[in-house]
Amino acid sequence: MSEIEETMRAMGLRAKAAAAELAYAPSEAKRAALDAAAAAVWDARGQIIEANARDLAFGRDKGLSAAMMDRLLLDEGRIASIVEGLRAVAAQPDPVGQDIAAWDRPNGLHIRRVRTPLGVVGVIYESRPNVTADAGALCLKAGNAVILRGGSESFHSSAAIHACLRDGLRAAGLPEDAIQLVPTRDRAAVTEMLRMVGVIDVIVPRGGKGLVGLVQAEARVPVFAHLEGICHVYVDVAADPQKARAVVLNAKTRRTGICGAAECLLLHRDIVDGLGAQIIADLVAAGVEVRGGPGLQHLPGVVPADAEDFGREFLDRIIAAEVVADVDAAIAHIRRYGSQHTEAILTEDDATADRFFTRLDSAILIRNASTQFADGGEFGMGAEIGIATGKLHARGPVGAEQLTSFKYLVTGNGTVRP
Amino acid sequence: MSEIEETMRAMGLRAKAAAAELAYAPSEAKRAALDAAAAAVWDARGQIIEANARDLAFGRDKGLSAAMMDRLLLDEGRIASIVEGLRAVAAQPDPVGQDIAAWDRPNGLHIRRVRTPLGVVGVIYESRPNVTADAGALCLKAGNAVILRGGSESFHSSAAIHACLRDGLRAAGLPEDAIQLVPTRDRAAVTEMLRMVGVIDVIVPRGGKGLVGLVQAEARVPVFAHLEGICHVYVDVAADPQKARAVVLNAKTRRTGICGAAECLLLHRDIVDGLGAQIIADLVAAGVEVRGGPGLQHLPGVVPADAEDFGREFLDRIIAAEVVADVDAAIAHIRRYGSQHTEAILTEDDATADRFFTRLDSAILIRNASTQFADGGEFGMGAEIGIATGKLHARGPVGAEQLTSFKYLVTGNGTVRP
Repeated sequence: MSEIEETMRAMGLRAKAAAAELAYAPSEAKRAALDAAAAAVWDARGQIIEANARDLAFGRDKGLSAAMMDRLLLDEGRIASIVEGLRAVAAQPDPVGQDIAAWDRPNGLHIRRVRTPLGVVGVIYESRPNVTADAGALCLKAGNAVILRGGSESFHSSAAIHACLRDGLRAAGLPEDAIQLVPTRDRAAVTEMLRMVGVIDVIVPRGGKGLVGLVQAEARVPVFAHLEGICHVYVDVAADPQKARAVVLNAKTRRTGICGAAECLLLHRDIVDGLGAQIIADLVAAGVEVRGGPGLQHLPGVVPADAEDFGREFLDRIIAAEVVADVDAAIAHIRRYGSQHTEAILTEDDATADRFFTRLDSAILIRNASTQFADGGEFGMGAEIGIATGKLHARGPVGAEQLTSFKYLVTGNGTVRP
Repeated sequence: MSEIEETMRAMGLRAKAAAAELAYAPSEAKRAALDAAAAAVWDARGQIIEANARDLAFGRDKGLSAAMMDRLLLDEGRIASIVEGLRAVAAQPDPVGQDIAAWDRPNGLHIRRVRTPLGVVGVIYESRPNVTADAGALCLKAGNAVILRGGSESFHSSAAIHACLRDGLRAAGLPEDAIQLVPTRDRAAVTEMLRMVGVIDVIVPRGGKGLVGLVQAEARVPVFAHLEGICHVYVDVAADPQKARAVVLNAKTRRTGICGAAECLLLHRDIVDGLGAQIIADLVAAGVEVRGGPGLQHLPGVVPADAEDFGREFLDRIIAAEVVADVDAAIAHIRRYGSQHTEAILTEDDATADRFFTRLDSAILIRNASTQFADGGEFGMGAEIGIATGKLHARGPVGAEQLTSFKYLVTGNGTVRP
């Protein structure tokens, strides 16, 4: 057995032992651990910023892009956000033990379906060090032990934050192994995690196409699929012009680097030269490169799209655009090119909206609002680990509740089955 | 590409096309298809019995056990049960389109979490030909296309039943490819199904240890885990003697061949020579072989257990039995030997029952009632494909509702994210 294999198996055993204890940990202890962790992060902000400086130096040597360096950076403001996030999860209701449903049977049996933890969660993420705190906190809230595997770029920052999470667990009398961080940059640790059937109950990958592809190809453990956010906005012939202009601009430009940012605009053919031209002019004025199909190339500022621009996650001030004959053509386009993440329709026509909602099967479908609302916080779920695009177990924003399972508790009175 | 690969890929494409249509099929059409299928099965009972005779001849040549031959057998009575099952699923409410939750956000967004089909389900099962009807019906009710792969022993019987299901679909104007049956006995078809990522959304294995093990080892597609039912019954010191005697006897002997049958009896040490002796005498009188640990071997009729008898699914008139010090020792025993299917406790003490319910994590935990209630019908869910023992997505009885996913439908009024 290699050293990495040994390390990971030992972590797995510790995680399972911690999970068995966490499964019935009092809500108050979990809350106290997260509040104590928040305080510890704030107290240790000096050390965290120091650790982050080492990561930034490593990143510079590695030649990371400006965007990557920005994701990596921690300053006092960002550490304050981490603290706030921990306190917010601490304040959330505990999902474990909640009744999902309860009913009586004619024979007198009383049946409850009750939320339980999943067990051991593996989270594999990339450069943002704040995920260490977010993912650790959400898993703990849901009563799960977690094995975190951060990006190699954020190695020291994540370790410094993780130390604070352990301080919080210790202060609350919970097992410190409830939140473990893989102590090596070696990529073999990821491969090992993906194979830990019977130890890790589910893997949550959070990162780019490369990471997600690797996880889906190699995992033997179940995975919450998390594909790209190739979000579409369809402007129908019955769209309200003012709403449509505001929503498209926001969906593309509010933030371009998040998975809920719009990547493709579909215009009903009857509005191309009126509302469509205005929307495109708004985007161009906001500095967006509009890559249009043949039916849009006569409009000012539109550059010709090529085939690869459809179904592409730009995460940048670029949008693909295409003309469609009607809502059915928009639906067909989205089925072909989308990633079942989030799509929006602008229309005042209820039947058209209903068709869009019924015939598409993305995790999130939106009418007359921005795709940028695809976010656990905006849904009112508190924090999230990510947006799941698969159809099993978790779908859409993955918060504490989505990190739970359930069991049935049945009570009788000496009841036997005839 | 081998012939089997080609066959399976073509079936997969047809299933996906059918699933896209089924996703928004009216409830009335699905109900009509199932009622028409029920009528078709009854009309074709002569042909089904003929087809079954060919399977029985094949089974005799293959030297199947009496129990296997009995599972395989279809007579008019059993066909009537199949018809009744189809009508019962037809009459169930349609889960697709149901609101699971709905709420408003302070910014005016209205969010609904709505049930959707999963897509394409693969069901791999063994000898019982009735699963063809049950699984086909439940998948259709939930708006899924299904690829059924029955046991080679029930090849002709399953094909005859499947023809009736297609008749039902055709009569209701639904795509006939909504329910497909793998048209070959070749085992390579199973291997192919397990690899159809992006085509089959989930595999439901229904069968013995060998099948389930194969599926779990080879599947690249997600699987609803379905381990053995190694069900435990713990009789506490605070058990009511009358309830305990009735429940243990029922849990073991009502039917011994189902996954909810009790396989291990745990007795609190303080009741061994009183209530415990009575319970064991009841079992022995009912023809059950009681294989006891050292603390029970002085009781009349008890034969010595060996180590392999614990954690074993007998599916027969045999039960393992052991003495434990208290509820915590019972919990530890069950954690070590159980399969997280169903366990029962007999006690009048609320704190003890609560400890058993909280600290064990089986799909179903039962107080003062028989483990034989581990069944979708008994839970009031209508029919079931099986009892899932995994913790992701489906757990416990898998009925139509457990064969669904969900999506979020968000409605705004030109709402943009600040």
